[in-house]
Amino acid sequence: MSATIIDGKQVASEVRAEVATGVAAFVERHGRAPGLATILVGDDAASAVYVGGKQKACAEVGIQGFDHRLPGDATREQLVALIEQLNADERVSGILCQLPLPGHLDGVEMTNLIAAEKDVDGLTVGSAGRLALGLPGLRPCTPAGVIRLLDHAGAQLSGAEAVVIGRSNLFGKPMAQLLLQRNATVTIAHSRTRDLEAVAARADVLIAAVGRAEMVRGRWIKPGATVIDVGINRLAEPPAGRRSSLVGDVCFDEAFPVAGAITPVPGGVGPMTIAQLLANTLQAAELQAG
Amino acid sequence: MSATIIDGKQVASEVRAEVATGVAAFVERHGRAPGLATILVGDDAASAVYVGGKQKACAEVGIQGFDHRLPGDATREQLVALIEQLNADERVSGILCQLPLPGHLDGVEMTNLIAAEKDVDGLTVGSAGRLALGLPGLRPCTPAGVIRLLDHAGAQLSGAEAVVIGRSNLFGKPMAQLLLQRNATVTIAHSRTRDLEAVAARADVLIAAVGRAEMVRGRWIKPGATVIDVGINRLAEPPAGRRSSLVGDVCFDEAFPVAGAITPVPGGVGPMTIAQLLANTLQAAELQAG
Ligand SMILES: NC(=O)c1ccc[n+]([C@@H]2O[C@H](COP(=O)([O-])OP(=O)(O)OC[C@H]3O[C@@H](n4cnc5c(N)ncnc54)[C@H](O)[C@@H]3O)[C@@H](O)[C@H]2O)c1
Ligand SMILES: NC(=O)c1ccc[n+]([C@@H]2O[C@H](COP(=O)([O-])OP(=O)(O)OC[C@H]3O[C@@H](n4cnc5c(N)ncnc54)[C@H](O)[C@@H]3O)[C@@H](O)[C@H]2O)c1
Repeated sequence: MSATIIDGKQVASEVRAEVATGVAAFVERHGRAPGLATILVGDDAASAVYVGGKQKACAEVGIQGFDHRLPGDATREQLVALIEQLNADERVSGILCQLPLPGHLDGVEMTNLIAAEKDVDGLTVGSAGRLALGLPGLRPCTPAGVIRLLDHAGAQLSGAEAVVIGRSNLFGKPMAQLLLQRNATVTIAHSRTRDLEAVAARADVLIAAVGRAEMVRGRWIKPGATVIDVGINRLAEPPAGRRSSLVGDVCFDEAFPVAGAITPVPGGVGPMTIAQLLANTLQAAELQAG
Repeated sequence: MSATIIDGKQVASEVRAEVATGVAAFVERHGRAPGLATILVGDDAASAVYVGGKQKACAEVGIQGFDHRLPGDATREQLVALIEQLNADERVSGILCQLPLPGHLDGVEMTNLIAAEKDVDGLTVGSAGRLALGLPGLRPCTPAGVIRLLDHAGAQLSGAEAVVIGRSNLFGKPMAQLLLQRNATVTIAHSRTRDLEAVAARADVLIAAVGRAEMVRGRWIKPGATVIDVGINRLAEPPAGRRSSLVGDVCFDEAFPVAGAITPVPGGVGPMTIAQLLANTLQAAELQAG
């Protein structure tokens, strides 16, 4: 027996196709497309690539992109003014402020200026609070994408033991909330966890989001478990027998014979994040249109 | 060996004494006392007792109480107007809207009208979001009180396995967040958890908040664990050998010989909630005063 590979590229393209259909229906009804505004401050190369990818993805599904760029020495006032302008702009359904910001700007403060109903990254205090209290709202993209992958893989979440390794605001903490809403018994593990191997080994659903190449070994995995590898780590060169030098937080070759289902890196969780951003943008547009 | 009994009455009175000292210093500096406004809608007897207890506790530590009562058929508009008036009133440091509200009023909506900086119950979306994101803010009273009890008992939280049974917005979910902030490995269990006994048995710190009399049995408890019993259940008559007909979610007589430390019911967690409300009111006043 070896694991089913959960094909994130395929699921992401299904999500994108659904969004494209939803966008077309939205245009039909409202005479305009949903809009996503991205804000990039400075010229960090990686951030520019991410923002470019998001804008391109919007175009592909018919979402109107608003690509705002500010110089690296932009003032707090400039950025505040831009966010307020976008909050007020009816064509803009969603706003995303690419992090990290240059050191003189406070990413948490700036993110929290985004109007709750346009918070398509789901990272504001309001969105985190709505998630924590089980109220409807926009959910962070990567954890929402993982739920979609788990559903695609047919994972039983209700009553399952789910273990999330990592407790970031971006991923681990909202992931735990979403699993709890789906009635899993949820454990959050992290850098201070003692005997992480034993904690991982009790998981029916194991989700690793640490940022440590191949940390989760085969013997950490309960036979038949569903394993979701969120980590993206670049090695100096591809591992033996692989083409990509990207690896996850899970040692895939060891996990593959033990797990019931597993996401690869690349091609697992990675493609879901942008797909979910598009879905959130459509959802935001629909909510705003009433 | 038998467990140390964690004396919630004593710890609560320590908290109250600290608050009284802090209130005196606040009056010295600002020429006025912190103020707590309670809102009671209708004449539910239990709610009236709770509100009365809170007002009395305020008086004892020198917090000014504002005791607002609306008739059971008060309109949404009346309640909104009252909350807005209290939000604007500088003498009011904290506002508490006693739940449940009569059926024609929405408790979640009304609670969320309370200004974030006056949300001494810590139950608004804003406070839940700040807790989830690890930002400073006002924390729900009962979980904050439990942390205080754990510290009093000298429980090692960092790296400990903590299990919270119950996932309410009022207690279980914020409790899990607070334990995570203290670097415990946290599991949330609930009505859909399979094999709850096995989940509980791995806990170094076991917290039960279910509302089922004596559900947690002695064999569920890891020897030496710290057990916090949040449940308050009233039996038809006192159990054999006891004076109170109140029991917790833990079978005390079975747990006592196994646990390292345990809270009794009554006299454990119960007294902490109001003490923590007073502490939150002082904290809110200090934040508002800058
Ligand atoms: N689109 C995507 O696919 C996507 C999105 C978000 C994050 N990621 C990837 O997921 C990984 C984590 O990202 P993040 O932003 O959540 O990370 P982060 O750095 O904010 O958090 C890492 C977490 O791992 C935990 N941790 C660190 N060392 C550990 C150890 N030895 N044992 C157990 N836990 C440990 C920490 O407690 C922390 O909570 C990264 O590789 C990141 O690139 C991918
Ligand atoms: N001041 C205080 O001491 C204080 C404060 C809050 C709550 N409480 C008490 O704590 C208890 C819980 O209160 P709440 O408001 O959090 O309750 P709630 O009714 O909102 O939630 C109960 C939780 O228990 C879980 N549950 C129900 N049956 C279960 C089962 N068989 N196995 C495992 N989990 C189960 C449910 O999933 C739910 O999350 C009550 O007894 C309440 O009186 C006391």
